[in-house]
Amino acid sequence: MIEVKAYGTEGEKENLKPMSIERREILDDDVHIDILYCGVCHSDIHAAKNDWNNTKYPLVPGHEIIGRVLKVGNNVENFKKGDLVGVGCMVDSCQQCSACKDDLEQFCEKGMVGTYNGKNKHTEKQTFGGYSTDIIVKKDFVLRVPENLDVKAVAPLLCAGITTYSPLSHWNIKKGDKVGVIGLGGLGHMGIKFAHAMGAETFMITTSPGKANDAKRLGADSVLISTKDDEMKKHANSFDFLLNTVPVKHNINPYLKLLKRDSTMVMVGAIEPLEPMNGGNLIMGRKRVAGSLIGGIKETQEMLDFCGENDIICDVEMIDMQEINNAFDRVTNNDVKYRFVIDMKSLKN
Amino acid sequence: MIEVKAYGTEGEKENLKPMSIERREILDDDVHIDILYCGVCHSDIHAAKNDWNNTKYPLVPGHEIIGRVLKVGNNVENFKKGDLVGVGCMVDSCQQCSACKDDLEQFCEKGMVGTYNGKNKHTEKQTFGGYSTDIIVKKDFVLRVPENLDVKAVAPLLCAGITTYSPLSHWNIKKGDKVGVIGLGGLGHMGIKFAHAMGAETFMITTSPGKANDAKRLGADSVLISTKDDEMKKHANSFDFLLNTVPVKHNINPYLKLLKRDSTMVMVGAIEPLEPMNGGNLIMGRKRVAGSLIGGIKETQEMLDFCGENDIICDVEMIDMQEINNAFDRVTNNDVKYRFVIDMKSLKN
Repeated sequence: MIEVKAYGTEGEKENLKPMSIERREILDDDVHIDILYCGVCHSDIHAAKNDWNNTKYPLVPGHEIIGRVLKVGNNVENFKKGDLVGVGCMVDSCQQCSACKDDLEQFCEKGMVGTYNGKNKHTEKQTFGGYSTDIIVKKDFVLRVPENLDVKAVAPLLCAGITTYSPLSHWNIKKGDKVGVIGLGGLGHMGIKFAHAMGAETFMITTSPGKANDAKRLGADSVLISTKDDEMKKHANSFDFLLNTVPVKHNINPYLKLLKRDSTMVMVGAIEPLEPMNGGNLIMGRKRVAGSLIGGIKETQEMLDFCGENDIICDVEMIDMQEINNAFDRVTNNDVKYRFVIDMKSLKN
Repeated sequence: MIEVKAYGTEGEKENLKPMSIERREILDDDVHIDILYCGVCHSDIHAAKNDWNNTKYPLVPGHEIIGRVLKVGNNVENFKKGDLVGVGCMVDSCQQCSACKDDLEQFCEKGMVGTYNGKNKHTEKQTFGGYSTDIIVKKDFVLRVPENLDVKAVAPLLCAGITTYSPLSHWNIKKGDKVGVIGLGGLGHMGIKFAHAMGAETFMITTSPGKANDAKRLGADSVLISTKDDEMKKHANSFDFLLNTVPVKHNINPYLKLLKRDSTMVMVGAIEPLEPMNGGNLIMGRKRVAGSLIGGIKETQEMLDFCGENDIICDVEMIDMQEINNAFDRVTNNDVKYRFVIDMKSLKN
């Protein structure tokens, strides 16, 4: 076992605090990564507070990890010491089932192994996330990060980035499509950047007129205020695709009316029960609602390469590890533009 | 104007009763049809009782019409006197918009003209449905009915048939697919017949164990009782397609769990608000919910031809026109297997 410094929590009502955790020894297929930066995802907070009733403590959050390779196992040929790499929400899967064979490890039929709060296949112990100095990950779950990007602003691509890139790519968004991104937070701000880079006529759809300028700076061609009925009516039946990033219970009916015949709204934020959907809003126009979950490893690599080619990074606010509890409060209050990233130097000193 | 006998209602609390209505004179593109049979659709009742708050009175329901051509207009070459024909839910549309050009007149951007409670484009007056002796319809909205079928059991194909055929065809159901039809009523019984005829492994999914034998007689390979949690769990993530024909508000979450990754449940019954859907049930497995509305004219003709080739008809109970109010009560109480059809001779005598 390798002992490393981390930040974690002992229970749902506890603050995060420094702790020492054990990582497995480097196996033949493993990559040992020195963590430089780790993004703060809203899921980290849900897990820390046991909002989904499945948290095992102690918990060390963090699944938007950027670092440099320190050492590789005997079978690892595609990474070497010093490489800039990333780790997202998964660190292992069965690699045998039809989902894994389709490069969709996030839907592994045996269950993918989460970067934290999962079960390490080798030690049978709990996995700990990126709020730590080092992590050891099977090579197949390590991503290559383009060197031309501002590294600290790359971390959130591993979750917020792939979560929004995957549906836009899977539903073939292309030049000329009219795409609406609903909700401007960590996910939404990446959705705008990707839709814009893919050539879509990109609309930010929000309840907050105050977000208009920022949305346009991020790449939105237009802003549609969803509380203005006349504006919503003007755009009825006109969108080729909607990416719904709203992370809480809400009413999706007004958005369904925006879709063109045979078009799709994809949900990536809200996992809870939504307000009642009218069947008629799907039936009239043969419309669709779908879900999407992060992305597979192959697609995550594609996304990182796309970001390298198109100079796409996240808008981040840097913090030290010691500021994490305050950062959690601010994320909960939607007070961040648009993602906190922890500079892991602060934990190493 | 041509005066014809009909049965209709003068208000939402009135019974249906005999009345005289006017049909337009036969225009160059028109087909004059002597109505033999007309199916009783649940929508007829909703319209008669103004459940959707859009009924204009007097109302003559009926959009599952089978008859023989009496006379054709000067421009009509594809129909002649004596032909066996059908008319479904639409009698006109703009025939110019992108939906009409895509053979999806049901989604006409100017609004299709309903067979009843619509607005006749030539007279600007209200359209009256098939609870009558004669109807005059533009040739492009008249369907050819195969002569080899039991004619009286063909009428409900024009609505219940196409409503279930269209999604199964559009989502490419094929041999070997595992398909679930949810709900066994007028729509569901046709869904089973079509899914079976398309070669799918067909499951009837119902809350009522008492419907099992009938479902199998109609073509279901298996019956899944949706209230039995252990059975539902056994079939989790295994269906290629679900056709949801339940006509009222209900909880779709248990059905979403039955879908395979990337698979779709199509709603054809409930147009009202459903019980809250969990976003997570779409997100886990990239699942989809869609809607579907009857079908275009071209597809309706395909469906009728498919029925001719595969000997598919509806299970019907014949009534005289004078029994319609009792039939409405029985449909409302789900007491029909599976569709009432009016023998229009009873109105002619």
